[in-house]
Amino acid sequence: MIAVLNKNAGKTERDALIAWLEARGLTVHVSEGEEHTVLGLVGDSSALDADLLGRFPAVRSVHRISEPFKKVNRLSHSADSSMEIGKSAKIGGGNFCIIAGPCSVESREQILDIASCVKSAGANVLRGGAFKPRTSPYDFQGLKSEGLELLKEAKKATGLPVVSEIMNIEHLPLFEDVDIIQVGARNVQNYELLKELGLSKKIVLLKRGIAGTIKELLMSAEYVMAGGNENIILCERGIRTYETATRNTLDLSAVPVLQRMSHLPVVVDPSHATGNAALVPSMALAAVAAGADGIMLEVHNNPFCALCDGAQALTGEEFACLADKMLKIREIVKGN
Amino acid sequence: MIAVLNKNAGKTERDALIAWLEARGLTVHVSEGEEHTVLGLVGDSSALDADLLGRFPAVRSVHRISEPFKKVNRLSHSADSSMEIGKSAKIGGGNFCIIAGPCSVESREQILDIASCVKSAGANVLRGGAFKPRTSPYDFQGLKSEGLELLKEAKKATGLPVVSEIMNIEHLPLFEDVDIIQVGARNVQNYELLKELGLSKKIVLLKRGIAGTIKELLMSAEYVMAGGNENIILCERGIRTYETATRNTLDLSAVPVLQRMSHLPVVVDPSHATGNAALVPSMALAAVAAGADGIMLEVHNNPFCALCDGAQALTGEEFACLADKMLKIREIVKGN
Amino acid sequence: MIAVLNKNAGKTERDALIAWLEARGLTVHVSEGEEHTVLGLVGDSSALDADLLGRFPAVRSVHRISEPFKKVNRLSHSADSSMEIGKSAKIGGGNFCIIAGPCSVESREQILDIASCVKSAGANVLRGGAFKPRTSPYDFQGLKSEGLELLKEAKKATGLPVVSEIMNIEHLPLFEDVDIIQVGARNVQNYELLKELGLSKKIVLLKRGIAGTIKELLMSAEYVMAGGNENIILCERGIRTYETATRNTLDLSAVPVLQRMSHLPVVVDPSHATGNAALVPSMALAAVAAGADGIMLEVHNNPFCALCDGAQALTGEEFACLADKMLKIREIVKGN
Amino acid sequence: MIAVLNKNAGKTERDALIAWLEARGLTVHVSEGEEHTVLGLVGDSSALDADLLGRFPAVRSVHRISEPFKKVNRLSHSADSSMEIGKSAKIGGGNFCIIAGPCSVESREQILDIASCVKSAGANVLRGGAFKPRTSPYDFQGLKSEGLELLKEAKKATGLPVVSEIMNIEHLPLFEDVDIIQVGARNVQNYELLKELGLSKKIVLLKRGIAGTIKELLMSAEYVMAGGNENIILCERGIRTYETATRNTLDLSAVPVLQRMSHLPVVVDPSHATGNAALVPSMALAAVAAGADGIMLEVHNNPFCALCDGAQALTGEEFACLADKMLKIREIVKGN
Repeated sequence: MIAVLNKNAGKTERDALIAWLEARGLTVHVSEGEEHTVLGLVGDSSALDADLLGRFPAVRSVHRISEPFKKVNRLSHSADSSMEIGKSAKIGGGNFCIIAGPCSVESREQILDIASCVKSAGANVLRGGAFKPRTSPYDFQGLKSEGLELLKEAKKATGLPVVSEIMNIEHLPLFEDVDIIQVGARNVQNYELLKELGLSKKIVLLKRGIAGTIKELLMSAEYVMAGGNENIILCERGIRTYETATRNTLDLSAVPVLQRMSHLPVVVDPSHATGNAALVPSMALAAVAAGADGIMLEVHNNPFCALCDGAQALTGEEFACLADKMLKIREIVKGN
Repeated sequence: MIAVLNKNAGKTERDALIAWLEARGLTVHVSEGEEHTVLGLVGDSSALDADLLGRFPAVRSVHRISEPFKKVNRLSHSADSSMEIGKSAKIGGGNFCIIAGPCSVESREQILDIASCVKSAGANVLRGGAFKPRTSPYDFQGLKSEGLELLKEAKKATGLPVVSEIMNIEHLPLFEDVDIIQVGARNVQNYELLKELGLSKKIVLLKRGIAGTIKELLMSAEYVMAGGNENIILCERGIRTYETATRNTLDLSAVPVLQRMSHLPVVVDPSHATGNAALVPSMALAAVAAGADGIMLEVHNNPFCALCDGAQALTGEEFACLADKMLKIREIVKGN
Repeated sequence: MIAVLNKNAGKTERDALIAWLEARGLTVHVSEGEEHTVLGLVGDSSALDADLLGRFPAVRSVHRISEPFKKVNRLSHSADSSMEIGKSAKIGGGNFCIIAGPCSVESREQILDIASCVKSAGANVLRGGAFKPRTSPYDFQGLKSEGLELLKEAKKATGLPVVSEIMNIEHLPLFEDVDIIQVGARNVQNYELLKELGLSKKIVLLKRGIAGTIKELLMSAEYVMAGGNENIILCERGIRTYETATRNTLDLSAVPVLQRMSHLPVVVDPSHATGNAALVPSMALAAVAAGADGIMLEVHNNPFCALCDGAQALTGEEFACLADKMLKIREIVKGN
Repeated sequence: MIAVLNKNAGKTERDALIAWLEARGLTVHVSEGEEHTVLGLVGDSSALDADLLGRFPAVRSVHRISEPFKKVNRLSHSADSSMEIGKSAKIGGGNFCIIAGPCSVESREQILDIASCVKSAGANVLRGGAFKPRTSPYDFQGLKSEGLELLKEAKKATGLPVVSEIMNIEHLPLFEDVDIIQVGARNVQNYELLKELGLSKKIVLLKRGIAGTIKELLMSAEYVMAGGNENIILCERGIRTYETATRNTLDLSAVPVLQRMSHLPVVVDPSHATGNAALVPSMALAAVAAGADGIMLEVHNNPFCALCDGAQALTGEEFACLADKMLKIREIVKGN
C-alpha cells in the first residue's frame, strides 16, 4: 500500500501517522519528492483499512497495490484451472462446456424430456432448479428436495452431470449426487454459505451478484478457496444498470477481464441476463466469441407453460440450432 | 394487468392468447380502440408472469396495474405503522428514533463506554455488530456470540434497547434478548432467512440491498410480513452507482417514496452510505430533513483503533453535537 | 396512453380529470373493471405529459402505449435501412462494414500509413478524429481543420470513404468531403446540432450517450430524421455502470434490441467501450456474433506514441488478424 | 503519478519504460521494495496518459496522485469563492440563495405573475427557460429570444436577477442582461460551449451531467476557468441510476464532497432530480440541511397548464411554506 501525504502535513502529524503504521507491524519507507511525499508500506498490509488510513489529516490519498484476492489470483497460479464435471464433462484449460435445462424442475416428464433433448443437441451438463429464490413470496418456490430427486433421475437416465442451486446450508446433504452446486446472484455474498462450501470438495458455480463488481465475485470465490475447495466456476449473468430494455445488462467484457485476473473458468448465462428468449441466441453466440469457457442456457419443452421464467427459455429446436453455431464460433475463436 | 396488442395481430393469434389467459382463471375484457386493442385482465393476475405474456406474438406491451406487494402497501393500511422498541423507545407514527453505537462490538470496555456515551447524548437505541459480513475472508469477522453477550450487558447497564445483525438463521436463538434483528444489505434477498424471521415476533430492520430497488426492499418486507410478523423497519443505506467519490450514493428520495408506498417506518444509515466520517453529519441532517423516522449512526470511542469501518465512525463528541442539531431539524420538519 | 384510476377517486375528481383530457383534444374511453377503472385515451397523446397526468389525485398510474419515436421505429419501416458509404462501402440490410483508423489524425505520414494498412487488412471505411472532445482542457484537442484535410488526403490515396466527429455546427462546411459525420457520446443530446444535421443529407453516425438509454439514442435519431435526413447509423460504445474494471460496460444486447425496435443499422465501437487494447479483440468478435452491422475500431501504427487513447489502439497486425476472424464469424452468424 | 511494476518485469522492459517516461520530460525515481518496485514520476505528468502507461508489460498498476483539475481545486484557493448576482443577491462564502421560477417562460402574464409571487415568498433569483432542450423533437421547444425578453421584463418589474439556459453559443449576445447563464446537464460536456463561456465574465451555472461524475463536473468547470472566467456555480440535479421510483437519484453527498474538493458554491435542483412535486419539499429541505449554498426550484402559477414539466412545479403557496422552512434549517446548519 502507498500513502501520499498532504503538502502541508506537519512533522507532528507525520510522526503520529508513522507510529500508527509501525504499531500495525509495517515498515514505512518515506520517499520525499519535489511535489509529494510518498509513504511505501512494507509488510503485510492486506488487513489494513485503507479508508481509515485516509482519514488521517496528513494523508491525501491511499493506493492499494496488491489485490485482496490471493488464491484465485492468476498471479498465484498462472495456468488455467480446469475441472472434471461428473464422468463425461470438463471445463477450463481449453475445454468448453454447454450447460442447458429448465429454470425449474417441474415434473418427472418435464425434466426427463428436456434432459434427453438437450443431450442429443450437444449439452454437456443438465441444469434444473429445485430451490428457487423468487422475488415474491407468492410465486412458485420450486419442488425442493423432490425436484432434486427428479434431477438425479434425469442424470441417471441420460448420463449428463447436473447442476442445481443451493439456498440454505442445511440442504447440503441433499446435494450429494449433484455435480455442481450453484450459488445464485442473491447469495453470492452470503458468507456463511460460502464458508461451508469451502469445506466441501464439490464444484461450486458462483454467479456474479445482481450488481456485483468483478472484484467482489473474485472475493466470494476467495471465501470458498480459503476454506480449501479449489473447484470453482465463475458465472457472468448480467448486471443491474439504468437500462430497462433488457432485464440486466450482460457484461461480456467481464469474460476476458476475469480470465486475465484469475485462473478459474468463466461461464456466461445469457438467459437470466436478457430475460427474453428472442435475445438469448445472439448473446450466447457473443459470449462464445468473447472467449467464455462455457454457456448456461434455459431450455424448456413448453415455455408457455413453464412455472418460472418461461419468457427466457429456448425451445429444444432453438437450442439445437444455437448449439451448432456456438461450436462453430468456438472453433474460430480458439483456432489460429 | 393490461396487455396492448400489436396492430397486425391476427384472429388466430388473439384467440390463442385469450384462451391461454382464460386457462389461468382470468376474465379478459377486450377494448377495441382506433389505434390499439387493449386487453384488461380481470381476476387475480398477481401470479401471472408478465414477461411470458409479453412473449406472445400478438402482444405489444404489458402493463402491471397493481403492485406485487400487498401487506406492506400503504393501500392496505393507510395509517403509519409504529412499534415499541424495548421499554423505552418508539418508532413510526410521528416517533423519531436515534440508533447509535459501534460497527462491531470489540470488548466489554469498548461497548460499555460507547453505550453510556451515546445514551447521554440522546440515542434511543444501541447498535453493535457481533456477526460481521466482510468482503474479505481474511478480515475480522466479529466476536460472534460473545459479542452478543457483551451487547446485552451494555443493554442492562444503560437500559437502551439494542440492535444487531443476523447472518445465519441457526443463530436466531442467540438473539432472544436483542430488541431489533438487523438483516444486512447482502442478505436482504436471502429468502430462507426472511421466511424464518416472518415466523418470529421480533422487530426486523431490513436494509436495502447494495443495489436494491425500492420495490425489492418492499418485496423483502413482504416476505417477512407474509409469514405473520408485522414488526418491520425499512432502512436506506446508500445504493451502488457509478460515482466513486463516496462508497455508496445515499438515496434520500427513497425516504418520502417509501413513506408514500408503505406504512412502515423508514430509517437512514449515513455511516455505511458515505463510508467517511467527514460526510456523515451533513448526510444525517439531510436525512432528518427528508423526513426519516430514525437515523442509524456509527460511533466509536477511538475510531483509529476500530477493528472495522473506523473511517466512518463519529467520536462521542461529534455525535453529541450532531444529535442536538438533528432534533432541532426534526422540530422544524414536523412543525407547522 | 392509458390511465388507471385510484379506487377511491370521487366523481368530482374524475370529472375534472376527464375535462382536462378532453380540453387537450383527446377522447376518453372509460372502462370500469371490478378492481380498477381504466381510462383509454384516444387521439394524439404524444404531446401529453404523462408525469403531469400522474399528478392528478384521481390517477394511480399512467402507461404509455406508443413509443415516442416514430420515423426511426421499425413499425413505420419494416425492412432494414441500408445506405451507401462513398463509392465502395455499404451498411445495413445484410451488408457488413469494418471502420478502422486512429483516434486522432496526428500527421500526414501517420494517417496515410494507417489508412493503407487498414485497407489492405479489410477495412471498408477509414476513421480519424480532427476535432477531439477531451475531458481536460489541458489535453491535445485535435488538429482541427488541418486534420480533416489530411483525412481527405488519405481518402484520395486509398479510395476509402471516411468518418470524423463534429463538435460544433459552425464546422459543418469543413465536412463536405467527409462521408460520415460522427456525433460523439457527449453531443448526442446536443439538439441544436442534431436539428442542423437533420437538414443535411450526410450520413450521420450517432453514438449512444455515455449513460444514454436505448430509447434516448432512438429519440436523438428521431431529431435528425424529423428534419428530413434518413441516413443514420446507430453506434453502441459502452455505457457507464458501477463496474470499474473496464472504462465502460459494452452493452451488446443493445445490438439485437435496437435492430428489433428500429430499421437503422447498428455498429459497435469496442475500443472506446473497453479503453484497453487487450480486451478489444474479444469484444469485437462478440459484437459481430451479436449481429452488429458494423464494427468501429481504433488502429494506430505506433500506439505508444499516440497523442490520444493509445491504450485502446490495435496495431496493424493485430487488426489484420482480428478482421479475418470477424469475417468468419459474420459468415456463421448470417449462414443457415 | 506512480507506477507499480510487475514482479517479473525484466531489465529490458524496465529500461524501455524508463526511457519512454524520460522522453516525456519526466524524472523517474525508482524505489525497490521487498515486494514491489515503485516508480515515482517527478515533473509535470498531467498530460501523461495513465492508461497508456498501464499498457506497458512491465507495469502492474498506475496511480494518479494529483487531481487533473487545478483552478477549481480547493488546494489552489482555500477560501470559499463567493459572487454577487445582479445588484441584490450573493452566493457562496456563507451566503445562501434561493432561485425560483417556472421551467419555461410561457407568456408575459405567467412570468410576471410568478416572479412577483416568488419574490414576495423570499426568492433571491428568478429562473425561467427560453431555449428548452427536449428529448422529443415534437415537444414544446421554448419561446426562445422572445422568452428571454419576457424574462428581462420580469427582472425589471421585480428587481430580481435572472438565470436562463443557453443551448447554442451563437445565442450568447441575447444573454447580455441575463445575470446567470445556465449550462444544462446535456451540454455540460459541450466543450466548445464551455470554452466560449470561459472568455465571458458572466456567472455560469453548470449542471452536473445526467450521469456525470463529480470529477467530470469539476473538469467542465475547469474548462470555463481555464479561459479566464472564475464566476462559476456548480449544480447537483440528480444522477441516473437503476432506481426508477424517481426520475433521477438526487446525490446529496455531492454537496459536501464538492465543497471539500472545490472552492466554488454548490446549489441543488430538487425539481429536476425528482420530477415529482410531492417529493420536492423534503428533498429541498434535505439539500439545505446537507449544506448547499443555494436551492433552485420550479414554481408555476398553474402547474396543470404548464407547457413543460408541470409535474414537478410547486405552486406559489407551496413554495412560500417551503422557503420559510428552508431558511430555518439553514440557521440550524450554520449556527453553533
